[in-house]
Amino acid sequence: MTDASSLARGVREGDLRLHELEDHADHDTAAAARRLLLETETDADLEAIGSYGFEAEAAESAIENMLGAAQIPMGIAGPVSIDGGAASGEYYLPLATTEGALLASVNRGLSVLEDAGGVDARVTKHGMTRAPVFRVSGVVEAAETVEWVEENEPRLREAAEGTTNHGELIGLEPYVVGDSVFLRFAYDTKDAMGMNMATIATEAACEVVEAETPASLVALSGNLCSDKKPAAINAIEGRGRSVTADVVVPGELVEDRLHTTASAIVEANTRKNLVGSAKAGSLGFNAHAANVVAAVFLATGQDEAQVVEAANAITTMETRERADTTDLYASVSLASLEVGTVGGGTKLPTQAEALDIVGVRGGGDPAGSNADALAEVIATGALAGELSLLAALASNHLASAHEDLGR
Amino acid sequence: MTDASSLARGVREGDLRLHELEDHADHDTAAAARRLLLETETDADLEAIGSYGFEAEAAESAIENMLGAAQIPMGIAGPVSIDGGAASGEYYLPLATTEGALLASVNRGLSVLEDAGGVDARVTKHGMTRAPVFRVSGVVEAAETVEWVEENEPRLREAAEGTTNHGELIGLEPYVVGDSVFLRFAYDTKDAMGMNMATIATEAACEVVEAETPASLVALSGNLCSDKKPAAINAIEGRGRSVTADVVVPGELVEDRLHTTASAIVEANTRKNLVGSAKAGSLGFNAHAANVVAAVFLATGQDEAQVVEAANAITTMETRERADTTDLYASVSLASLEVGTVGGGTKLPTQAEALDIVGVRGGGDPAGSNADALAEVIATGALAGELSLLAALASNHLASAHEDLGR
Amino acid sequence: MTDASSLARGVREGDLRLHELEDHADHDTAAAARRLLLETETDADLEAIGSYGFEAEAAESAIENMLGAAQIPMGIAGPVSIDGGAASGEYYLPLATTEGALLASVNRGLSVLEDAGGVDARVTKHGMTRAPVFRVSGVVEAAETVEWVEENEPRLREAAEGTTNHGELIGLEPYVVGDSVFLRFAYDTKDAMGMNMATIATEAACEVVEAETPASLVALSGNLCSDKKPAAINAIEGRGRSVTADVVVPGELVEDRLHTTASAIVEANTRKNLVGSAKAGSLGFNAHAANVVAAVFLATGQDEAQVVEAANAITTMETRERADTTDLYASVSLASLEVGTVGGGTKLPTQAEALDIVGVRGGGDPAGSNADALAEVIATGALAGELSLLAALASNHLASAHEDLGR
Amino acid sequence: MTDASSLARGVREGDLRLHELEDHADHDTAAAARRLLLETETDADLEAIGSYGFEAEAAESAIENMLGAAQIPMGIAGPVSIDGGAASGEYYLPLATTEGALLASVNRGLSVLEDAGGVDARVTKHGMTRAPVFRVSGVVEAAETVEWVEENEPRLREAAEGTTNHGELIGLEPYVVGDSVFLRFAYDTKDAMGMNMATIATEAACEVVEAETPASLVALSGNLCSDKKPAAINAIEGRGRSVTADVVVPGELVEDRLHTTASAIVEANTRKNLVGSAKAGSLGFNAHAANVVAAVFLATGQDEAQVVEAANAITTMETRERADTTDLYASVSLASLEVGTVGGGTKLPTQAEALDIVGVRGGGDPAGSNADALAEVIATGALAGELSLLAALASNHLASAHEDLGR
Repeated sequence: MTDASSLARGVREGDLRLHELEDHADHDTAAAARRLLLETETDADLEAIGSYGFEAEAAESAIENMLGAAQIPMGIAGPVSIDGGAASGEYYLPLATTEGALLASVNRGLSVLEDAGGVDARVTKHGMTRAPVFRVSGVVEAAETVEWVEENEPRLREAAEGTTNHGELIGLEPYVVGDSVFLRFAYDTKDAMGMNMATIATEAACEVVEAETPASLVALSGNLCSDKKPAAINAIEGRGRSVTADVVVPGELVEDRLHTTASAIVEANTRKNLVGSAKAGSLGFNAHAANVVAAVFLATGQDEAQVVEAANAITTMETRERADTTDLYASVSLASLEVGTVGGGTKLPTQAEALDIVGVRGGGDPAGSNADALAEVIATGALAGELSLLAALASNHLASAHEDLGR
Repeated sequence: MTDASSLARGVREGDLRLHELEDHADHDTAAAARRLLLETETDADLEAIGSYGFEAEAAESAIENMLGAAQIPMGIAGPVSIDGGAASGEYYLPLATTEGALLASVNRGLSVLEDAGGVDARVTKHGMTRAPVFRVSGVVEAAETVEWVEENEPRLREAAEGTTNHGELIGLEPYVVGDSVFLRFAYDTKDAMGMNMATIATEAACEVVEAETPASLVALSGNLCSDKKPAAINAIEGRGRSVTADVVVPGELVEDRLHTTASAIVEANTRKNLVGSAKAGSLGFNAHAANVVAAVFLATGQDEAQVVEAANAITTMETRERADTTDLYASVSLASLEVGTVGGGTKLPTQAEALDIVGVRGGGDPAGSNADALAEVIATGALAGELSLLAALASNHLASAHEDLGR
Repeated sequence: MTDASSLARGVREGDLRLHELEDHADHDTAAAARRLLLETETDADLEAIGSYGFEAEAAESAIENMLGAAQIPMGIAGPVSIDGGAASGEYYLPLATTEGALLASVNRGLSVLEDAGGVDARVTKHGMTRAPVFRVSGVVEAAETVEWVEENEPRLREAAEGTTNHGELIGLEPYVVGDSVFLRFAYDTKDAMGMNMATIATEAACEVVEAETPASLVALSGNLCSDKKPAAINAIEGRGRSVTADVVVPGELVEDRLHTTASAIVEANTRKNLVGSAKAGSLGFNAHAANVVAAVFLATGQDEAQVVEAANAITTMETRERADTTDLYASVSLASLEVGTVGGGTKLPTQAEALDIVGVRGGGDPAGSNADALAEVIATGALAGELSLLAALASNHLASAHEDLGR
Repeated sequence: MTDASSLARGVREGDLRLHELEDHADHDTAAAARRLLLETETDADLEAIGSYGFEAEAAESAIENMLGAAQIPMGIAGPVSIDGGAASGEYYLPLATTEGALLASVNRGLSVLEDAGGVDARVTKHGMTRAPVFRVSGVVEAAETVEWVEENEPRLREAAEGTTNHGELIGLEPYVVGDSVFLRFAYDTKDAMGMNMATIATEAACEVVEAETPASLVALSGNLCSDKKPAAINAIEGRGRSVTADVVVPGELVEDRLHTTASAIVEANTRKNLVGSAKAGSLGFNAHAANVVAAVFLATGQDEAQVVEAANAITTMETRERADTTDLYASVSLASLEVGTVGGGTKLPTQAEALDIVGVRGGGDPAGSNADALAEVIATGALAGELSLLAALASNHLASAHEDLGR
């Protein structure tokens, strides 16, 4: 074992490589050595990055070439009552962000949701997907391969499920483009986000396909999964969890707390989130669902790059007449929210604590219920953010319309 | 001033509200009070979240209802030589992530890029956008409004630019859908990511539009901006920076370092990133650009929710014949990368240090050059990630093809 | 019964309405009266429109307020040999178009395909879809409705199939967005294009859903079908027939007949059809498949408005090494080709004759095989068009490159 | 000169090729010979196809290998009053279709529009586009090329406009993806649809680009045009004409004539055309605009394959309160409607007559006004079709809701 400055010197002198330092010292020393090296080479002072609050070794499965940690401010919003398929009762939402005003906006929204009697939420679809692409000689072999796959799904299920204790193959859809065959496997991965589980299970199934058909595997992911890309296939068919949260906000509350009317909010939602998004060629028909998704993802150890598709959401708002009042129905539907409460970044200290705040750390009972609940909580947060922002727009518009009338 | 436990008690007893604590104590005490409260109400232990390494007050503009901080492991990849429009010389990339193997993969890719003589990179388009939506009575007024706007762009520019010291209005495009008029304003915001600047400037321009035309503002963002949604308008027209990094990797290097051939890599790219993405209805024609974008965004204080559109990328790979060898041309083009080196999360301690590692903290000389350089560095990192992953696929495929032959 | 001029006078004087004329005279006289009326009111001379070659009454189910007919020039291309799932042997293609050079281009392509030994073709997926949208009170009822539907698919199948002699329900997929539930029904409609069959069957199933769940039908088509709109759901999941035609063109033939190389064609396809379409945010990754689809549709009595989605196609081209030669693999995959050989416009005289040219008029044996064969023929025509156009681009590019070298 | 049967024999015996017959006989005889040949080879009887009502030679620029003509039933709808930018007064719409009930539906819609006082319509954007793709060595050359193009737009305009008497270059936008540079040229092509004009002009400009920059032309169309593909770039930026038609239908009329309410129509539009299309990943936010676009295109000699993008439309519906009544605002906005009144298929006899019915045959005064008027007429027809279909849905829904209440 060596100290950090010797290690840094070793790298500078070409005796060691940056990624080999853990072979020569403990993980914290290796990280310190990297900071020393970079401080010399770049004039940066890396004290803050070095002030992390966990054992470097504990992050071994999350990072290589570790330097330290980024610290992102975390705030709290809520509480809000959720009547979900898995979530039930009062919830606080931890959000990590550097977007000023986001916490305040979500908190205001949650407070209105709470006063409206809380939120309904449901996970309406499950399935973590992997879609390998195979090469065949042409469409004749492609058709043969698809036929074989459709007739032998039990064999593929057996191979796939043989690799996992928890995962279940719940869907398998073939797609043909010329001499490429794509197979989209979907798994119930319970409380795990499940990409690794899905990848390993699919790899086993691919071996059977390769052995029994003319198809030759080119890539375990053929981009029909689709992971970390904004693809219509996810927005339509879902990935991870498809989840909706909704509420009816009484007209009085819209006026007293949001200073506008249900009609004005509906108009803003239609022009901006529906018509505007339509004109933009968007897969996102919402105002800023990504803000909430990204902030809860960061706080709770989800995969930050999956925000790309996890934030795919449609926000709907409509008026509902009741006696003399016009209430507001508001919903957010996230099509492809990939979340887990076990594995990956969820094990790191601040992330695990944040999951404890939500009450969903680790495996749920029944299996999958913790990740379902987390999905429902995120949808609720997104709904709060949408309501808050659209109400602000509508109330400005109303104010400005009043001014115009006064001219 | 009060201590944390009194504050927590005040909230529990209904005398104080969660977001008012900073009125009664310093920011760190307020955060401590929130942790205490949550520890009681949720059984969570929030020690790690409380172990943040900055003054809570310094994060005031980034968060409300602060609890503490999320800590995300940060690693380092590189160095790599970049010959960019702004970037020039050797760069290290700080990446904050919990995605195991990402750092290793990017680092391997960067090492091959370096051995290939380094990377070329260019920002090919600028423009932070804001697109308000206005209500008119119908298409007759819509056409009048558009005509007025087109004839009075100088007045709108004056109003917009009057709100900012640095920003310049560089584009203004009208769109009509029925009785909605959208105006997409684009600004050169120099080293700032520029959303706030663009919003404030656009608000001033909107006042002129409202005063001079029949149009009435419904929302400052009408979703044609498009912020934090995966919209074709950004993938086509760009937002923030459009940036490309590319390289020619000599055939020998492909074989020796990546254990495959240029042809095999090109095949994997075509089937997966082009044909697969086409079939998926995707706006992302790449393997995992989002991983690098998200990780550098987190490390350097960018807006994590903008990963949604910032990761829109097209990866191209082609063979190039040279004497007896087949080289590999590889490129990544990010259409809408929103980055800044001043303002927002860039001021926080770990984030500022990470910008120092890249050498782009604060305003550049000339203005905008630091953010341009950061964009070129991110594109380079994305290129490394693509090359590394596609080469791994191709090399597995080759290996498996050899096995098949041996059977 | 009255003559045409009396009828026209009746309309002019307000005694009759334009759509009521068939109540007072035979269909041809009614059409003549409309021409007379329009000739007076618009100065048009409608002799050509009046020179149609069929009994007006025979078009009763195809048109109301009939005036006469549009005449579109029809040409012939081929023959070409197809080894398909349903098509087998030599085929001529009738194309009706006003796009000069289209016939020549397709014919040139077919001739090369023929010399390459003919084309392979397969229908890889079936299913004419209808997707009603229901209103529920919120996501709780939405989840209940979806659960009921999933558990009671046999009842819905029974109701749906009870309305048709031939159709079979082969798929049923639920989608939830807030308080809207969409159910996408897919049917095997044999040799009929099947929209009417699918609509009637779905209507019967919807009555069951309304009777047994809280859901209330808003529209029999909720735009997830998706009919006559360019939607990703069709490009991904298919509608009507998904069909691919492909070929390997020997390198010698590429040089002798197309005056270019496989590599040059592949380059043109990649830059234009893959990368260009990706950048354009397109669902169409081809050069001009719509030209062939539209022209065969017109000639054979298909629904011209369905060209919108029927032309969704991905064209792939790749080099294949063989001894000293580089061959060209070329394919076109149409995802959502809606075709029929019975019903609708297929019964009109010129259209029925065109189906006779292809040899697929009326119901096939087995049922569905005529429409399958027509789909394979259209895919072959599209492949010919793609090959011809891309080869022309490549050969121009080569020529221009040679000139550049000579300068 | 030879008779048809000798020619047919010549082809059968291999002495002549199918496309050479016009070299040996007049065009009508050549067509007759092809029919004879096909009748022998396929058992088809081609009498109806041979009964065309124009001189075959007149169709020479529209078709090769002519056989005869397809006859599509044509009907008439209207009249309707349009207050457009170019259209003014009463218009009849000729529609050629085999879709039963379409004419009746459009006619009903037009009648309601007429009773509502007629329709407003405006062309809000012009520009026929061509977007060549060039190859460069990498992004460094790409950036150079773009810079040269931006600085030398006048030279490119001069070259482009030198090829045409009427066309004007009105836009030029560069796009970079790796080592591909796309330039999207937009032209005002007046009364011509303008594809040929745009292609020829762009070819001349490309020669300048190739001479002055490192860029080498790969394809005159690089699919960012985007012609005959459903691409977001057209839906966003427009192609041909962007045109809107709208109306306010008084509440009384909605009840008396459409048997429903404005609210019910708005609900159907929102759930189906906005939310349903959003969920489908669609570029078409309408019910069946393609039906009207396709039918007028066929009747008036437009390019049937361009229906693909010409039908891109957003339909909006909203309630407007007036005294005690709720009126309906309805609009259809077509983003990329490519139409012409000169050239191409417009010269054929039935097509020219149909243009006379609309009153827009040939060049307009001022130039472009006829094609503008035709665009406004098509938008009006599409609006009628949308109103009619959505009202029918809403009225069924109301009826069914009443039944439900009665249970």
